[in-house]
Amino acid sequence: MEKSDRFVRYSLSFLLFFLVGFGLAQKMPLSSETEECIGCHEVIQPGLVQSWRDGRHSKITPQAAFKKEKIKRRISSQPTNPALQKVVVGCYECHALNADQHPDTFEHNGYKIHTVVSSKDCATCHAEEAGQYGHNIMAHAYGNLVDNTVYQQLIKSVIRPASQTDHAGSDFLTMDESCLYCHGTKVTVKGMETRDTEFGEMKFPVLTGWPNQGVGRLNPDGSLGSCTSCHPRHDFSIETARQPYTCSECHKGPDVPAYKVYSVSKHGNIFKSQGKKFNLTAVPWKIGQDFTAPTCATCHASLLTDSEGNVIAERTHQFNDRLAWRLLGVPYAVPHPRTPELYKIRNSAGLPLTADLDGSPASKFLITKEEQKRRNDRMQKICLTCHSSGWVKRHFKRLDNTIQSTNALTLSATKIMSKIWEKGLADQGNMFDEEPERLWTSLWLFYNNSTRFASAMAGGGDYGVFANGRYQGTEQLFRLKSWLELHIQMAKKAQKK
Amino acid sequence: MEKSDRFVRYSLSFLLFFLVGFGLAQKMPLSSETEECIGCHEVIQPGLVQSWRDGRHSKITPQAAFKKEKIKRRISSQPTNPALQKVVVGCYECHALNADQHPDTFEHNGYKIHTVVSSKDCATCHAEEAGQYGHNIMAHAYGNLVDNTVYQQLIKSVIRPASQTDHAGSDFLTMDESCLYCHGTKVTVKGMETRDTEFGEMKFPVLTGWPNQGVGRLNPDGSLGSCTSCHPRHDFSIETARQPYTCSECHKGPDVPAYKVYSVSKHGNIFKSQGKKFNLTAVPWKIGQDFTAPTCATCHASLLTDSEGNVIAERTHQFNDRLAWRLLGVPYAVPHPRTPELYKIRNSAGLPLTADLDGSPASKFLITKEEQKRRNDRMQKICLTCHSSGWVKRHFKRLDNTIQSTNALTLSATKIMSKIWEKGLADQGNMFDEEPERLWTSLWLFYNNSTRFASAMAGGGDYGVFANGRYQGTEQLFRLKSWLELHIQMAKKAQKK
Amino acid sequence: MEKSDRFVRYSLSFLLFFLVGFGLAQKMPLSSETEECIGCHEVIQPGLVQSWRDGRHSKITPQAAFKKEKIKRRISSQPTNPALQKVVVGCYECHALNADQHPDTFEHNGYKIHTVVSSKDCATCHAEEAGQYGHNIMAHAYGNLVDNTVYQQLIKSVIRPASQTDHAGSDFLTMDESCLYCHGTKVTVKGMETRDTEFGEMKFPVLTGWPNQGVGRLNPDGSLGSCTSCHPRHDFSIETARQPYTCSECHKGPDVPAYKVYSVSKHGNIFKSQGKKFNLTAVPWKIGQDFTAPTCATCHASLLTDSEGNVIAERTHQFNDRLAWRLLGVPYAVPHPRTPELYKIRNSAGLPLTADLDGSPASKFLITKEEQKRRNDRMQKICLTCHSSGWVKRHFKRLDNTIQSTNALTLSATKIMSKIWEKGLADQGNMFDEEPERLWTSLWLFYNNSTRFASAMAGGGDYGVFANGRYQGTEQLFRLKSWLELHIQMAKKAQKK
Repeated sequence: MEKSDRFVRYSLSFLLFFLVGFGLAQKMPLSSETEECIGCHEVIQPGLVQSWRDGRHSKITPQAAFKKEKIKRRISSQPTNPALQKVVVGCYECHALNADQHPDTFEHNGYKIHTVVSSKDCATCHAEEAGQYGHNIMAHAYGNLVDNTVYQQLIKSVIRPASQTDHAGSDFLTMDESCLYCHGTKVTVKGMETRDTEFGEMKFPVLTGWPNQGVGRLNPDGSLGSCTSCHPRHDFSIETARQPYTCSECHKGPDVPAYKVYSVSKHGNIFKSQGKKFNLTAVPWKIGQDFTAPTCATCHASLLTDSEGNVIAERTHQFNDRLAWRLLGVPYAVPHPRTPELYKIRNSAGLPLTADLDGSPASKFLITKEEQKRRNDRMQKICLTCHSSGWVKRHFKRLDNTIQSTNALTLSATKIMSKIWEKGLADQGNMFDEEPERLWTSLWLFYNNSTRFASAMAGGGDYGVFANGRYQGTEQLFRLKSWLELHIQMAKKAQKK
Repeated sequence: MEKSDRFVRYSLSFLLFFLVGFGLAQKMPLSSETEECIGCHEVIQPGLVQSWRDGRHSKITPQAAFKKEKIKRRISSQPTNPALQKVVVGCYECHALNADQHPDTFEHNGYKIHTVVSSKDCATCHAEEAGQYGHNIMAHAYGNLVDNTVYQQLIKSVIRPASQTDHAGSDFLTMDESCLYCHGTKVTVKGMETRDTEFGEMKFPVLTGWPNQGVGRLNPDGSLGSCTSCHPRHDFSIETARQPYTCSECHKGPDVPAYKVYSVSKHGNIFKSQGKKFNLTAVPWKIGQDFTAPTCATCHASLLTDSEGNVIAERTHQFNDRLAWRLLGVPYAVPHPRTPELYKIRNSAGLPLTADLDGSPASKFLITKEEQKRRNDRMQKICLTCHSSGWVKRHFKRLDNTIQSTNALTLSATKIMSKIWEKGLADQGNMFDEEPERLWTSLWLFYNNSTRFASAMAGGGDYGVFANGRYQGTEQLFRLKSWLELHIQMAKKAQKK
Repeated sequence: MEKSDRFVRYSLSFLLFFLVGFGLAQKMPLSSETEECIGCHEVIQPGLVQSWRDGRHSKITPQAAFKKEKIKRRISSQPTNPALQKVVVGCYECHALNADQHPDTFEHNGYKIHTVVSSKDCATCHAEEAGQYGHNIMAHAYGNLVDNTVYQQLIKSVIRPASQTDHAGSDFLTMDESCLYCHGTKVTVKGMETRDTEFGEMKFPVLTGWPNQGVGRLNPDGSLGSCTSCHPRHDFSIETARQPYTCSECHKGPDVPAYKVYSVSKHGNIFKSQGKKFNLTAVPWKIGQDFTAPTCATCHASLLTDSEGNVIAERTHQFNDRLAWRLLGVPYAVPHPRTPELYKIRNSAGLPLTADLDGSPASKFLITKEEQKRRNDRMQKICLTCHSSGWVKRHFKRLDNTIQSTNALTLSATKIMSKIWEKGLADQGNMFDEEPERLWTSLWLFYNNSTRFASAMAGGGDYGVFANGRYQGTEQLFRLKSWLELHIQMAKKAQKK
């Protein structure tokens, strides 16, 4: 009597699978081109090809996928080319798509192949998702970093202290594997090269910024984003995308500790303890029936219904459509920017920041209170499938308070930092490359962000206190204060003489 | 020949389940009240209701649960109300229990319902566990923090640097989501409010400190503790409580890195690598047969037997009954306090600390050497089911040594800190809100604690050395020393003039 | 149609197992001695004995194991003693092996037993692995630490600040549970003692440095290494050894953050999300068929083939045979040392370091460019089973760049540090026990290492930037610079007077 109905249900489906197993294993329609690809590549890259075999792309044609009831669909559009509709999605279907739009297209055994499958290629069958993703800040992560003059200073202080000392590393290579690992690189074609292969000499394009699967990758075809960031290698498993480990690739560091907070939250605990019983592949994803605790995807991306199929949340790849605030990467938390192209924002001093150094938001670039409410409502509708309205209301009230108090802490620190700059004790030319400047930076970039994430994700506890939270935030303040006092004293003595 | 007997056993039980599956799925006796609850709440909160359906509470009546052989029981008492004995434990059974003792009781569709199910409510069927938990420090975690005048200073320095600067955040909201997220909030009723619901306007109580599931929550009915801290939402799964992810919610930060140490210990490695084969729901929990490496619950809470049913360790919810030392949250490790109400302890200077600043323990508040031995014996009986007596003896000897050496490090740092205070280079008024004070605090609150946990949990290695361990502890000492020397020099020069 | 062939395959094997289950459960040939061991030890240590029952050692005789086709073998040699060939590997077979070579051999119920099973004992059936492991740096981890005069200073500064202050802890006990927990202790016999047991008084040897399972343990029989480090307790599960949790025991701290980097890499994400579908016990380990993303063991140790059985990589227990560079534990990354006995290396100043303080490598102790290429080729052959040659080439180019740029950062910091020493602002007698010295040390020991691991393991992102990466590395540089400036100013003023 101890096992749940769910277990019985699983047992049944298990047996069913066994009985019809051989039927399922029957061959799917491959294009002759893909068959040819596999002929060689299965030998030299068995891992890659098996990954594709494990995935859904190898098992269903776009046509069959599109025939499903809309709410059960995993694709939102059909290829216009009828030939593509009737074969499964194999090597050739993606790596030869839109060949003429790809500067990285090259001749390969008689076919025109490109290495970098772009978000535009994926849009062939996933038009809606690609469209939404274009409005996502993540799609613009490359420009938002490298075209922001303030962040350029930060980058310079982090990966090129060289200019001040004696290091002359190759900046592009460093950039590609550090900041741009997550933000996405700019992939361009720099000619062709000949490489020895198991099948003799072959010519391949030389790509700068490659390999990379960053979220805002600039693809050779001019499109933005790398779908494989979250749908990786080559099984494109929805089960992987829905697990928090995917998000943790970029959201674990002290600047964006979302995964860390999640993992010690009640949500994370239940997922880690009970997640093996969850159905992580169902579309739509039925709250309660398929899972009883959310992963990142639940609240930020997935199409959710109740057991009867009533929609609780629409699928979205514009994740900020449920986010009222911009919490991270900035000195002050502010209402979410209207545009995903953050580098175009200007504060009143003309800097590409969402607020002035005194915390006043660059309001004309930010969403209104009404839009904030709409986004909160969308998010809260999900919360309410497990929690009471009183619970949810109070949770969001706490977040508002945390935004206010962390902003206040940034302001306290910024006032001290401003004095240090005014008195010439540090050089504001680059705001990130001296001891006191880093005290100031870590306070908001790490500790205030961590505190806000702990609050926003109900992971509370240590990430808001002792684990890169308020303790460390206030510590930076005390150190900054002490630094200023000491150096003022020094300066005074120097003057007296 | 590669699979174990265990696997065969699982295969068998799997088939058995399949065969009797439909029988299991038959309806359990629900109270009519609970049926009514579910009628609405399954629609608006499918996640919450499914979680309950997945749990044991929905599948067995207290009467049936109590009829089991004592060693297999998961309840320790029966409801005195006979009506409650014969229905499964549904919404109404808990949320309407002891209605008149709950200030948060409110009229809800003709029933008297309360939001906050308290440890006293749970004690209806789990009297023994609730009783033990009352002697657990965790039950008193609220008072132990907010009624301790020393910790009040720490809190003030961490969440209210405001007074010194310009931040005037809402302290209660901050407290509730930071320190009290783990320690537990004080939940009180502040009147009623009307909220719009899917079923029209309804009145609900307004609760301060809500939501919260901290271990020492002060419930509206005056009881202490929130059982859902470790038995969460609403399946109350023993499988969840026994997994280290539950404990990690509060025991992961640098102040109590128990989960971190566990996860890189041999125990943690085996659990993560082989835990999927463990039986995490069996009662009693049979060492060897059900699992071959301990989780937190194994050593600190669960009823353990060997395969023949001989008891190795009794179930306890007073976790310190196997703990000889108080390792954490204090400058010096000392024998475990007698009382769980730590805030009542006084050192010789009258401060609510378990030792003087020079390390002398407040012995009259602490357990004797004999009681320490009794507790160690209880713990070691568990260790000995996998390890030899020589192994265990030496392990505990190392812990004693670590306690001594970390206490010595605290003393070294405290001597420097005392000079800084004596010379007026920092203000002892609040011992936590200046740069050198934080150097001193981090040394014992983070680094010595981490070192002790690494030692106590045989996780050794990096948490005792480079990962917030001895390296960082000694570093704080060197920095503190350097700080003192520099400021003495400065002061001397100032005097000379 | 959603489940893969693999699932069907699993279903089939599951049913097969069920049908032949009872057959499998038949008794294996135990030696009479082992039967006697189990008689008592199953009662007093059920966890330990069940762990052995779960493992392969309890299920197959060396003879049967050796009869397998070579590529499927898990042993590389047979015991010369024919009696050992025909019984499964039980308690007695290991704990009484080579009795006369074990100073820890003691009389135990009429048998000559030793506690510490050594790598030499394991070599009876695993000769090749033990041989390779002897060339592994890990086998020499004890001497490489305690016989290196530079590291002796570091140890002294970390675990014995005593001399400078007032702490007089027991160094050996501290060493055993801190540095030597991973590096391995020196286990020696210090006489015998009588202990009370459930079966009356018994005599056992007293062992120093025990318990320990560090990789470079000095066993009483003079052999090096503890196989149980990675093949733990007593199931010796290959499934455990192949999971990253095993490596994380020692490779998680800030000095060697391999597990941390892995866990946020694409590889780690796929393992965590999809690893439950991997076959982690197959020998040989077939890329694609058995797994689609690597764990640590895949790239560094395991015998890998494609589905047809063509060998991609030979099994090795000399892990550096695929490593071109020594990245960790040293100020400068250099070509891998020739010898695993690192403490014998001398730089031009006669110090036991792989490079001078200005970064010039101690080349005569290091492998050549040609050998580096051979090692890279071996590693890349594995990469190429999932990635294209362009991908792999560029990845290794980035690593070269990172080595260069992190070395440059060390050099910048070392120049400042040298000035501090020259000017007498810190005492070079011990290079690790003053504030500025720790700034310098953390820069290379933690932050440069982390940056290199992020690069080497394609985990990129935050461990190369904000999570103990370049941000923290440059921060140390700025702090060191600021420290020097301040103290020069102080010194000048002192002089003027």
